[in-house]
Amino acid sequence: MIENRFDVAVSARHLHLTQETLEILFGKGYKLEPVKPTKGQYLSTSRAAVQGPKHTYENVAIMGPCREYNQFELALTDTRVIGIDAPIRMSGDIEGTPGVTVIGPCGSVTLDKGVIVAKRHIHLNPLLAESLGLKNGDSVAMRVESDCRSLIFEDTIIHLSKSPESNTISHIDTDEGNAANIQKRGKGSIVINK
Amino acid sequence: MIENRFDVAVSARHLHLTQETLEILFGKGYKLEPVKPTKGQYLSTSRAAVQGPKHTYENVAIMGPCREYNQFELALTDTRVIGIDAPIRMSGDIEGTPGVTVIGPCGSVTLDKGVIVAKRHIHLNPLLAESLGLKNGDSVAMRVESDCRSLIFEDTIIHLSKSPESNTISHIDTDEGNAANIQKRGKGSIVINK
Repeated sequence: MIENRFDVAVSARHLHLTQETLEILFGKGYKLEPVKPTKGQYLSTSRAAVQGPKHTYENVAIMGPCREYNQFELALTDTRVIGIDAPIRMSGDIEGTPGVTVIGPCGSVTLDKGVIVAKRHIHLNPLLAESLGLKNGDSVAMRVESDCRSLIFEDTIIHLSKSPESNTISHIDTDEGNAANIQKRGKGSIVINK
Repeated sequence: MIENRFDVAVSARHLHLTQETLEILFGKGYKLEPVKPTKGQYLSTSRAAVQGPKHTYENVAIMGPCREYNQFELALTDTRVIGIDAPIRMSGDIEGTPGVTVIGPCGSVTLDKGVIVAKRHIHLNPLLAESLGLKNGDSVAMRVESDCRSLIFEDTIIHLSKSPESNTISHIDTDEGNAANIQKRGKGSIVINK
């Protein structure tokens, strides 16, 4: 049986961009490169500025590979600094969200939507999901243990991974990481009410 | 019986100062005034700048009345912005903590200690404490219910209030408030394991 204990990774503010947006920012034919070789989604070596009404964040990480939509994910603390009242949403659920201006060395793009605070979630291994009786889209409580700020995040959404070999990993934002006193990575477990 | 449900107040970064420090910043004989009349601790009408190695926060709130020690409380997010690696401590427990420079219109003071991230805590009515079997200094779990980010803060310290008429109130910082999706005030309850 798979252990109900997994990595919890803290995501700082970051961008997902379409290839089209990327080329406006960095030039025709530009390609994202991973900082280190990874399966699936990766941190790229490219950075862009993100300009809101109250502040501009320089050097915002761009995730690869490119997506079919543009999205800027930030923490609630960041929303007040940059001056954009973004909602808490699942990644990709961007209809009706505010936009922002993204600036690269070759050009800039003003997005008409795509600014969200990401809803905390767990990419759950399907075998662990089965053993816990969980399905895609379920909302669970996840305990994160840490030095002097342990806590239990309710309202954590299950994203079922496809591969039985996949590692379970939870993504939370910097506010949530700070509330739990973990900086980049911690350990979590799904709370099972017996 | 008193209800186990109380206000949870989100504290943004703020200063507690001695009368001596206050007079260096604002001039001889300067007095703090509350923004609105309050019993006990209050938000004053005075503000000062706080300068760290990486950033200066302007217009930081000064709490009144003056204390016997200087203290700058901030969130973990703020520690990275200002560039000070402050520990998580109970208010007043400032031995061995880093210092910072505080700047007012008449002068500035470089504190040799006093920068902390406040440990979450509950000022608990003594009658409610008795009914829950809790004493001063106990660590409890506190549930905060909110729209889409409910959570349970473990490692929450009990500060027993003296007066049986006192209102129970919990203080958390902005990172914790954001992790729970409450901006200024929410509602909490102490989790009782039966």
